[in-house]
Amino acid sequence: MFRYKLTLEYDGRHFHGFQRQDGFKSVQQCVEEAVFSFTQSHTRVHVAGRTDKGVHALAQVIHFDLNRDIDAFKMLMALNAFLRDTGCIILKVEQVNEDFHARFSAKARSYVYKILNRRAYPTIDLGRVWHVPKTLDVDLMNEAAKCLLGTHDFSTFRAAECQSSSPIKTLDILFFEKKGDFIECFVKSRSFLYHQVRNMVGTLKLVGEKKWTIDDFQKAFEKKSRKDGGPTAPADGLYFVSVDYDQNMVGTTGIEPVPPTMST
Amino acid sequence: MFRYKLTLEYDGRHFHGFQRQDGFKSVQQCVEEAVFSFTQSHTRVHVAGRTDKGVHALAQVIHFDLNRDIDAFKMLMALNAFLRDTGCIILKVEQVNEDFHARFSAKARSYVYKILNRRAYPTIDLGRVWHVPKTLDVDLMNEAAKCLLGTHDFSTFRAAECQSSSPIKTLDILFFEKKGDFIECFVKSRSFLYHQVRNMVGTLKLVGEKKWTIDDFQKAFEKKSRKDGGPTAPADGLYFVSVDYDQNMVGTTGIEPVPPTMST
Repeated sequence: MFRYKLTLEYDGRHFHGFQRQDGFKSVQQCVEEAVFSFTQSHTRVHVAGRTDKGVHALAQVIHFDLNRDIDAFKMLMALNAFLRDTGCIILKVEQVNEDFHARFSAKARSYVYKILNRRAYPTIDLGRVWHVPKTLDVDLMNEAAKCLLGTHDFSTFRAAECQSSSPIKTLDILFFEKKGDFIECFVKSRSFLYHQVRNMVGTLKLVGEKKWTIDDFQKAFEKKSRKDGGPTAPADGLYFVSVDYDQNMVGTTGIEPVPPTMST
Repeated sequence: MFRYKLTLEYDGRHFHGFQRQDGFKSVQQCVEEAVFSFTQSHTRVHVAGRTDKGVHALAQVIHFDLNRDIDAFKMLMALNAFLRDTGCIILKVEQVNEDFHARFSAKARSYVYKILNRRAYPTIDLGRVWHVPKTLDVDLMNEAAKCLLGTHDFSTFRAAECQSSSPIKTLDILFFEKKGDFIECFVKSRSFLYHQVRNMVGTLKLVGEKKWTIDDFQKAFEKKSRKDGGPTAPADGLYFVSVDYDQNMVGTTGIEPVPPTMST
């Protein structure tokens, strides 16, 4: 048995999310079909962080097993030939030990949430940003965001459909940065509740537009109930950026490592 | 007679270029139709820099005349309501004096050319970048580019269809900058020959991938003949960034000035 770790980029606009669903195009289906086209083997793909319909990925990580030893670079080129024009592409292939698991070995996951904060509707960035016409106060949003850092009960930002066993999570990074008309929110945690990033951003936006005070925000967080949080920010602005693994989980690859870079 | 100066953003993927063409969607047609829908007046739009099919604009400038005095902010909101979902949007409206001309008053035009320099095909940036799989040496490209700065005969980079009276142009800025997997080329000149930016970038790419030496590049430039230049870079990576006008050409506007920012 040989285990392969793959790093992929995809444009969420082309998919009904990562996970396979009958009748809808998913990233999982595209990758599994490409692996089958190349190897004639049926395999199941495991992912570091499932993403919803419309959510993008700059460096998602998956793994799967094959009973053949295939050169990493050869696999990269072959799979990308099959994946071209699907909206998903492989950035890197590595052979890894069988104790590596894309999901369970992950030490941290990073996201970026991108807002276009100007009056005019997006053109070039349509589907890639959340368009917020009213000017947001980024300093206020950052001030409010501070109370979320560390280990807390994140029920206020937990979607009803969340399957996590506990609402307790440890948030390592959460801050907003203004870049011209764009505002980017950087988020990092070992793992997230379902819709946690989009619910945090959607609620902090209320602070940025001064509908809520920082005190309102803190109180909503302390209430530990989704009904006290703000709306869910749209999928368009969300990018799964990267996954951290232990160094001893790093595999062998035919190519140079590709750092995730964002068109932002 | 009232003259209006408008700043617009558009996604080149939606248009067969700026200029009106029978049977094809153009930026000019969309804007003229929006003005007609709003004012019931037929008007002709003049543009700072015509762009080709597939070329994007972050802050293109146009002007047109109306026989009605319309508030700038009101016009911005009304035109954008008509333009929504066309791929073109107005960032700013100003009333200007009749001696302002979008094209003839322009002192300089700036472009950015964006390359995605990695093996894997683009997904999120498809249609927004030139995909160059082979690693480019940006230092070599910058070294070669130096000989283009200043006033020269740019015939080597002039498309056959160019209608300019002279091939002599003055290039103020031309340099490449690496940003992760992206390479951006910044270009500024009073005006450009037809396809000049794309031909310069397409030829400098030959230097970057070491098919040409810097000496080859300089000799091709000195030959002053298009057949000695390299290929034309695709429209996908080209962005019309901004136009400079004299300060006394600045008009009155209902909103704050919007600096052009790029999702890059």
